[in-house]
Amino acid sequence: MSHAAQGQTQASASNPSTLAEPSSVIVNKSAHEFDKTLFDSLLSRRFFFAPSFEIYGGCAGFFDYGPPGSALQANILEVWRKHFIIEEDMLELDTTIMTLADVLKTSGHVDKFTDWMVKDLKTGEIFRADHLVEAVLEARLKGNQEARGQAAAPPAAEDDKKKKKKKVVKSTAVKLEDETVKEYEYLLAQIDNYTGEELGDIIKKHNIVNPETGNELSQPQEFNLMFQSEIGPTGQVKGYLRPETAQGHFINFQRLLEFNNGRVPFASAQIGRSFRNEISPRQGLLRVREFTMAEIEHYVDPKDKSHPRFVDTKDVQLQLLPKDVQEQGETTMTHMTVGAAVGQKIVDNETLGYFLGRVQLFLEKIGIDPKKLRCRQHMSNEMAHYASDCWDFEIKSSYGWIECVGCADRSAYDLTVHSNKTKQKLVVKESLTEPNVYQKLDIQLVAKPFGMKFKKDAKAVEAAIRGFSQEELAKFKFELDEKKEASVKIEGGAEHIVTNDIIKIEEITVTEHIREYTPNVIEPSFGIGRILYSLLEHSYWARESDVARGVLSLPPLVAPIKCLIVPLSANPEFTPLINEISAKLRRAGVASRVDASGASIGKRYARNDELGTPYGCTIDFASVANGTLTLRERDTTDQLIGKIDDVIAVTVALSNSQMKWSEACQKLEKYSGTQEIE
Amino acid sequence: MSHAAQGQTQASASNPSTLAEPSSVIVNKSAHEFDKTLFDSLLSRRFFFAPSFEIYGGCAGFFDYGPPGSALQANILEVWRKHFIIEEDMLELDTTIMTLADVLKTSGHVDKFTDWMVKDLKTGEIFRADHLVEAVLEARLKGNQEARGQAAAPPAAEDDKKKKKKKVVKSTAVKLEDETVKEYEYLLAQIDNYTGEELGDIIKKHNIVNPETGNELSQPQEFNLMFQSEIGPTGQVKGYLRPETAQGHFINFQRLLEFNNGRVPFASAQIGRSFRNEISPRQGLLRVREFTMAEIEHYVDPKDKSHPRFVDTKDVQLQLLPKDVQEQGETTMTHMTVGAAVGQKIVDNETLGYFLGRVQLFLEKIGIDPKKLRCRQHMSNEMAHYASDCWDFEIKSSYGWIECVGCADRSAYDLTVHSNKTKQKLVVKESLTEPNVYQKLDIQLVAKPFGMKFKKDAKAVEAAIRGFSQEELAKFKFELDEKKEASVKIEGGAEHIVTNDIIKIEEITVTEHIREYTPNVIEPSFGIGRILYSLLEHSYWARESDVARGVLSLPPLVAPIKCLIVPLSANPEFTPLINEISAKLRRAGVASRVDASGASIGKRYARNDELGTPYGCTIDFASVANGTLTLRERDTTDQLIGKIDDVIAVTVALSNSQMKWSEACQKLEKYSGTQEIE
Repeated sequence: MSHAAQGQTQASASNPSTLAEPSSVIVNKSAHEFDKTLFDSLLSRRFFFAPSFEIYGGCAGFFDYGPPGSALQANILEVWRKHFIIEEDMLELDTTIMTLADVLKTSGHVDKFTDWMVKDLKTGEIFRADHLVEAVLEARLKGNQEARGQAAAPPAAEDDKKKKKKKVVKSTAVKLEDETVKEYEYLLAQIDNYTGEELGDIIKKHNIVNPETGNELSQPQEFNLMFQSEIGPTGQVKGYLRPETAQGHFINFQRLLEFNNGRVPFASAQIGRSFRNEISPRQGLLRVREFTMAEIEHYVDPKDKSHPRFVDTKDVQLQLLPKDVQEQGETTMTHMTVGAAVGQKIVDNETLGYFLGRVQLFLEKIGIDPKKLRCRQHMSNEMAHYASDCWDFEIKSSYGWIECVGCADRSAYDLTVHSNKTKQKLVVKESLTEPNVYQKLDIQLVAKPFGMKFKKDAKAVEAAIRGFSQEELAKFKFELDEKKEASVKIEGGAEHIVTNDIIKIEEITVTEHIREYTPNVIEPSFGIGRILYSLLEHSYWARESDVARGVLSLPPLVAPIKCLIVPLSANPEFTPLINEISAKLRRAGVASRVDASGASIGKRYARNDELGTPYGCTIDFASVANGTLTLRERDTTDQLIGKIDDVIAVTVALSNSQMKWSEACQKLEKYSGTQEIE
Repeated sequence: MSHAAQGQTQASASNPSTLAEPSSVIVNKSAHEFDKTLFDSLLSRRFFFAPSFEIYGGCAGFFDYGPPGSALQANILEVWRKHFIIEEDMLELDTTIMTLADVLKTSGHVDKFTDWMVKDLKTGEIFRADHLVEAVLEARLKGNQEARGQAAAPPAAEDDKKKKKKKVVKSTAVKLEDETVKEYEYLLAQIDNYTGEELGDIIKKHNIVNPETGNELSQPQEFNLMFQSEIGPTGQVKGYLRPETAQGHFINFQRLLEFNNGRVPFASAQIGRSFRNEISPRQGLLRVREFTMAEIEHYVDPKDKSHPRFVDTKDVQLQLLPKDVQEQGETTMTHMTVGAAVGQKIVDNETLGYFLGRVQLFLEKIGIDPKKLRCRQHMSNEMAHYASDCWDFEIKSSYGWIECVGCADRSAYDLTVHSNKTKQKLVVKESLTEPNVYQKLDIQLVAKPFGMKFKKDAKAVEAAIRGFSQEELAKFKFELDEKKEASVKIEGGAEHIVTNDIIKIEEITVTEHIREYTPNVIEPSFGIGRILYSLLEHSYWARESDVARGVLSLPPLVAPIKCLIVPLSANPEFTPLINEISAKLRRAGVASRVDASGASIGKRYARNDELGTPYGCTIDFASVANGTLTLRERDTTDQLIGKIDDVIAVTVALSNSQMKWSEACQKLEKYSGTQEIE
């Protein structure tokens, strides 16, 4: 919680969402403290999302999106598609969720995508081992401080980051030895680095038990986080539900490259569902077993990570938390432009910097509060097995700072392992304008005597020699030149002696017109559910008059419905106007909804404040008599009035973020009627 | 194949795709016979889709969509969303793919969503039993005809329908007894109706073996078509990947109803991935294990299936194949309007008729050839376990007539079974303007003596009596009145005697102000991959000059890219114009792509003909000097010329289907240059 204040100087010049902000803000959005209970109740009541299989008792880690949640998600994804895929000509993909086990074996997920779990030996309850150790030790440290009458120290960066994941354990005021406090602090700082065995030792040494039952715990067991299934009826073809969409891009690399006429850099992009079989998910949408991702894989020449459009993002402001700062136990954020961060080598290269800037712009565009957004570099001990550098966009919510977008440089890892495994080339061929000329040792065999000498092993001997690196070959040649023979080990281990009459190794000049290389991959990967949840928290506030009157100030760009059409009553006289206005808004591509229910106008607007609907048009008898319409703005509840077509034109412009409310106030008259009954 | 001709009188007045048709069609689209090999090669070469995990050897039934396939799919889904969700104010949902086993147990999928399989006893190869029997018997019948020197008879409706699914078995000219022929024909007509045991008997009786190895086959075993997995680490929570999105709607019904302010009719809609673990999928995109569906569940009062917007679709022309026609072994289609079909009770009710009309309009809008589209009613023996009536939109392709959209009346089946299982009410409450007054038998217990008499069983006895239907209760009362006592069986089976001093059953008058009912569900369910594949086939043809020069005449509405921007050469002088034109098209929402590769202009256009890109703008030196641009139309290869902004305006209008090519020809001058080098 201590970090929000530090971010308040963040420039908001680059925040496109300010367009939607009414000019005459007579709204006190911070009149009430954020109330999680009321907020959760709103999301459930308005069916933004709800536990899946709710009438069957639910199942942790699964959520269904109702109409406003689905529309909000669809709108976020549409902005994402335009901002990234269309704007940058990315190649969109749609690959399968079910993935052949071989693919994920090669990528490392079968072996390394695991967590350690421990069981309560009596009840069988299962915990994530690292989370449990962490929670228990932190509770003991807190209890120690209470016993010593100390105020709790502000959490360090790492603790703060992790608080979100763990089970909360109640502290009891028990004093600890100074030695013990030091040991606990050391263990907590390293908690991400322990193997299962080490976690087991810590649990034993420090008498960690199930905090609720007091029962002993099992040895930590490894648990793979992928959902497994069988393909077809034989039981012999294993598949996993993908834990990320990325592998679907990589194994299609050669086709994508061909589609792009063989040229690099280019990017592929995919929006789709992924799965992680979490051991014990808590925290609503932030830790789920099934989620929508949007992933970009940008393929780039490892020798040239410049970006042609870098200039477009170099002035974007970021709030950075680099690794060296964290490694000193600090959490001080630095405000810096992308250009400066790349210039000072805090961010490694232009392409990575470019994407950090683009991601920042995207998140601001959909309405994420830039003060609650930071860009944290991974420390070396927390990097995924495939990454060579990684920055996370973390968004602050009531759960703390949560990773919502990861920007990793996956280097050539994935393409290399898939290529090695399948023996398929996953490389770029570049025609060189200046040929590459260099010297190398070349092997020439005297075919007949070579074959006669080694018989059935001849091929293996040749393969072994041709498999030498240039250094090994130089050594081999040296030995041959010296002793007229040299020994070589073939596959299987047998050794053979090669004599200098059947082989010639000479330095030759090579002129290459084509360069072949495995591109590096820069990957921005978006967790859409986490972004959506954070956005809802950032948008939520309650009217000064009543803490229960919640409002979601979603930008029109992503609001589920842009305009509510409210007839004063169920009088059939209003029907033709309702149909006319609906049709005109629909034709202009503005999502609207009619609320002709019997509730009072005030209640209907309050309901739509909770749904985040930015505008409302009221049809009354004046509409029928004089052809006028009133237009209400959600945040201020201000109302304007004008001729129907003028009001529609203004509503369309507002909904498309082409007009600000202050401009609308110039175009239409202020309305001072008393239609809105509170 | 014999059916296409019958459909050629289909009116195309309602076909919105004709808007995209050039007026001066100088194109001979049927110059060449459809060549499946060339067509498949085009789809693969241009990466519309390709086998998943291709570099790992692939896995039957899984396909990845490349850039043009993904864009085509996204465009089809966008049209779908506008045509159904937006236009009809449906409530969109996004529910999980992983589904708790209990849900699918209740829905009937765990028990009934199965196929029968047989194994080659030596090689272990697995076949779908009904498909194999069918293929072998048909091959024998064909062999018999060959042996008798007869031409193959035109397939009957049913055979034609099924040809698509089965394994193709080569026929050998062997003469059969007349008796045998009759028996085979009978078996084939009934093939959908056999149990596993019956299929096993047929296999034995007719010596059906693996046609490739000649090996014997196992007894048929039941195989559930759902992918199974385990949720969480305990191994005790079973889940299945959903076989349809529908159940996610039904279990959220109460929340949806509340969101709709308690009013019926309304519809929920969902687009998402579903899974079927097919035994042995063949036939490309038409039978896959993972696929995108779009499903609508329309909830309606079972007593009133009228539809307020029925008038909007009553004139839509359908090509109908009703069940009574099929039951006579006929395939004659009837052309009829929706209004006539509902009026003549061929289609049961207005709501079902309304959706048939809307689906027809949707399919025509995206470019499905109405001559290759029919609406076939299910015969009673092929209905799914939950359906009470069902019409399939079948689209004709080289695989025969394939079900692409199912329109089922699922009655109250799903809501009832989920409600019974969970004890949650899934009902609509309707305030009655006229209260419903009726007589009923009412039970009053004399609590104390009743409790004392039955002690621990008192509750069970009460429950048993209250569980009686009105008829059972009348019988019970009669016995009580006659004999002063009556017996009742409680759960578990024990019998108790109830005497008339501790219970009173009397007729009372009930006045209901609220009617409670379970709505019926009309479900249009779309297989997006099948529609997409059929559309590609319908759009494909080859230029008269060269059978290898394929063109995909996709309507601009769904074409992956609307406009190709082609600079004459890589001359940097063209760059500012490329950027200007790209930016203007992007701002107008028109998906364009620049092809600045080194290939000739003709080659670049040919490539984009294969991608279905309807328009192309060529930038040449005249563009730089005079500010002109040429515009090429894909099907005719006609070119127009005009000022850059005029050409852009025309391109935008054409791409949005707001202008026909004939109108464009009025606005811009015909171009007679020689830039396009063939």
